[in-house]
Amino acid sequence: MIPLSDSLQSELRELLGPRFSTAAAICDQHAGGGMHLPPLPPQAVASVESLDEIVRACAAHGAPIIPFGAGTSLECHVGAPRGRVCMDVSAMKRVLRLSPEDQDCTVEAGLTRIALNEHLRHTGLFFPVDPGADATIGGMASTRASGTTTLRYGGMRENVMALTVVTPDGRVIRTAQRARKSSAGYDLTHLFVGSEGTLGVIADVTLRLHAAPEATSAAVCAFKSPFGAASTAIDAVQCGLPLARAEYLDAVSMRAVNRAFSTAYAEADTLFLEFHGSPEEVAYYAERARSIANENGGGAFQWAIETEARNELWKARHNAGFATLSLRPGARPWSTDVCVPISQLARCIETTKRDIADLPFPAAVLGHIGDGNFHVILLVDPESADERITAQRFNDRLVARAIEAEGTCTGEHGVGLGKRESLRHELGEAVTLMRDIKRALDPRDLMNPGNIFLPDEAA
Amino acid sequence: MIPLSDSLQSELRELLGPRFSTAAAICDQHAGGGMHLPPLPPQAVASVESLDEIVRACAAHGAPIIPFGAGTSLECHVGAPRGRVCMDVSAMKRVLRLSPEDQDCTVEAGLTRIALNEHLRHTGLFFPVDPGADATIGGMASTRASGTTTLRYGGMRENVMALTVVTPDGRVIRTAQRARKSSAGYDLTHLFVGSEGTLGVIADVTLRLHAAPEATSAAVCAFKSPFGAASTAIDAVQCGLPLARAEYLDAVSMRAVNRAFSTAYAEADTLFLEFHGSPEEVAYYAERARSIANENGGGAFQWAIETEARNELWKARHNAGFATLSLRPGARPWSTDVCVPISQLARCIETTKRDIADLPFPAAVLGHIGDGNFHVILLVDPESADERITAQRFNDRLVARAIEAEGTCTGEHGVGLGKRESLRHELGEAVTLMRDIKRALDPRDLMNPGNIFLPDEAA
Repeated sequence: MIPLSDSLQSELRELLGPRFSTAAAICDQHAGGGMHLPPLPPQAVASVESLDEIVRACAAHGAPIIPFGAGTSLECHVGAPRGRVCMDVSAMKRVLRLSPEDQDCTVEAGLTRIALNEHLRHTGLFFPVDPGADATIGGMASTRASGTTTLRYGGMRENVMALTVVTPDGRVIRTAQRARKSSAGYDLTHLFVGSEGTLGVIADVTLRLHAAPEATSAAVCAFKSPFGAASTAIDAVQCGLPLARAEYLDAVSMRAVNRAFSTAYAEADTLFLEFHGSPEEVAYYAERARSIANENGGGAFQWAIETEARNELWKARHNAGFATLSLRPGARPWSTDVCVPISQLARCIETTKRDIADLPFPAAVLGHIGDGNFHVILLVDPESADERITAQRFNDRLVARAIEAEGTCTGEHGVGLGKRESLRHELGEAVTLMRDIKRALDPRDLMNPGNIFLPDEAA
Repeated sequence: MIPLSDSLQSELRELLGPRFSTAAAICDQHAGGGMHLPPLPPQAVASVESLDEIVRACAAHGAPIIPFGAGTSLECHVGAPRGRVCMDVSAMKRVLRLSPEDQDCTVEAGLTRIALNEHLRHTGLFFPVDPGADATIGGMASTRASGTTTLRYGGMRENVMALTVVTPDGRVIRTAQRARKSSAGYDLTHLFVGSEGTLGVIADVTLRLHAAPEATSAAVCAFKSPFGAASTAIDAVQCGLPLARAEYLDAVSMRAVNRAFSTAYAEADTLFLEFHGSPEEVAYYAERARSIANENGGGAFQWAIETEARNELWKARHNAGFATLSLRPGARPWSTDVCVPISQLARCIETTKRDIADLPFPAAVLGHIGDGNFHVILLVDPESADERITAQRFNDRLVARAIEAEGTCTGEHGVGLGKRESLRHELGEAVTLMRDIKRALDPRDLMNPGNIFLPDEAA
């Protein structure tokens, strides 16, 4: 690893004072990894507090930059395989503008989604994208995050209206105005959403907000197979029922939830549903969903209409990932994700579960079934090289299966360092176009080098 | 204009036989223009019938190519300022795949939206994007078209899942798989949607379909000012009412409609609304919309629940553009469009109408009010250079006003040849990034040269 030059260090220290640090403890906090990939700390951390500081840091030093928000990404997006400077934007967390009439706002990249919703609490609006972790809005835009409510409200792809981005040479780009639609030239907003910090640093994000539902209800329903759960979600979507959430948890996940939270859910293929609307709508949607579930062999609906009961239910769902640790204490969870057309989902889950049955470690399947997106959490012994290899091979088979089913190697976690070969497997020559764009906008490969592209593909 | 080389002509003639033509009559049919811009015919037309022919034509000859669908675009996207070869894909109109369970399909670029909906008629599904004209799906993707139902179902931006694109050097790129969401690398789909043929030729398009609504109802309501109509749309959107369509027509548009179709609507600021859902939902939405309209000074609702009455109503709306010709027979209509945040819409329309009052020719204002998108149709004497200049200056002021209101110079018509300076005015340095992408993917400026970028900006 090439050491950072003295001139670079003194330049950034002059700009940021004590907010520039090369201390190992600080660098280790920004190392990414944590799941299947080892932590890869940067050589220095630059904590910026304004757009102007981002610009000056980018323009000034010309060293590779790894944008950093909350560090909750799952494919080691913030790992620094070649060291260099982590640019931490988490102190940039102002709401710059809120227009309730237009149902949109502009926030700095370091604001987290929970903090944003706190800010919106009394406006009658909310920001629905919910990937589970309390990620920053900038990070969520970078990885094209989605989550439990995407079925109804869309993910970051649908809810980012515009971005302010700083290019590698320190130019400030506004990707779009804040009209709800536009045909004005190339869609730079969508190009930067999901570019994982490889094209520039996101400084602020203009977001669509949604009317907070008047009423909400939720239900849990157990099935005899993934087919019943998947068919219920498909049928509901097909008949135009606007499910707000439709989450699948397999029996292993439900066992983990019961162990971790002392709940008593049936340990079976389970669907968690949520409905948003006026009280009349919610009642109507729920009744239709119940009858669809019935037709697909679902058991009785367990209702949760009160806020507290509903929060309890979604706490179980949201923490199912962590709960899986109860299945094998000491293991390191490796959460991978794929997304397939919903017609392929049940078969893809069934095959995956047969594959899991042969693994030497436990694994849980759960996901956003209405979108065709599911996760497998592999509970791997971090000390065992054999298990890591077995897990990697399982992951390769899972990705191949998803691509074979006309799906994608990652529905919402992103490429990062972990799925670069999968990306090429999935999209082939299209990755060459992506690389051409990368080279055009970042010819010196300064922005999050190593992410998305294999070393021989970058500049 | 440089003549086409003999070798190029013989190569394409060998490939396409009589489907390659340099006849003036054929070239004139592919000249674009028609509204404010003069027709600019190509030097030859190559009618392709397959992906393979597109590839071979692109790879073979290396001459500039102008992709052509139905020729209904409004900013002279298919005009050929420097001549060269028009690639007509309108014979490519097969439905390649239809997956009712996944609510998606893949169609060739030359299929029109009405033909697609004919094909879907008995599936319970429909393709909602409706720009008015019976455009091709490839053309609609190219210009990022939207229209009357975008408020509820989104436009091409939201409904194109993937594209097959042929690059200028004849490589075939699949931009995405057909999962409903993906975080697999740069979003090439959205990059090509709205790129107006400047990055490659779209060969086929994978589209999201939607459940055809069980029930539909529509209503017309007159207001005393654009404010009442706009506020009704804003309030309805804000309280989460899923309006399927919310169209505004000013008094001039309504007068034109009455004249052209012998209807007897009030000649006032008018809102056309449509509701989709189950019969219960539709009744509920309509009742809520009625009470919101009431609060905003709306007159009585004129209902149209039966299909025939509804079609009559939407025929009036859809043909309002043509109807304006009745206001000044012999005039050439120039339809321009801008889109602003909805909070700015009423004010922007009012100022625009004051500006119109000073024009020496009639002009109508109408548009997709729920999205903040409106059109002005200027009825210009095609023989008068003075009127053309006056219209251009009016258009410049309209665009400046929209940008000042944080809106866009074009909500759905695109940049084409007509709004290249407006684009730069709106997005400034971002256009430099677009140009960098254009140069990276089309270094010889072969794809629809002259569109989006001013001559000094291209390769």
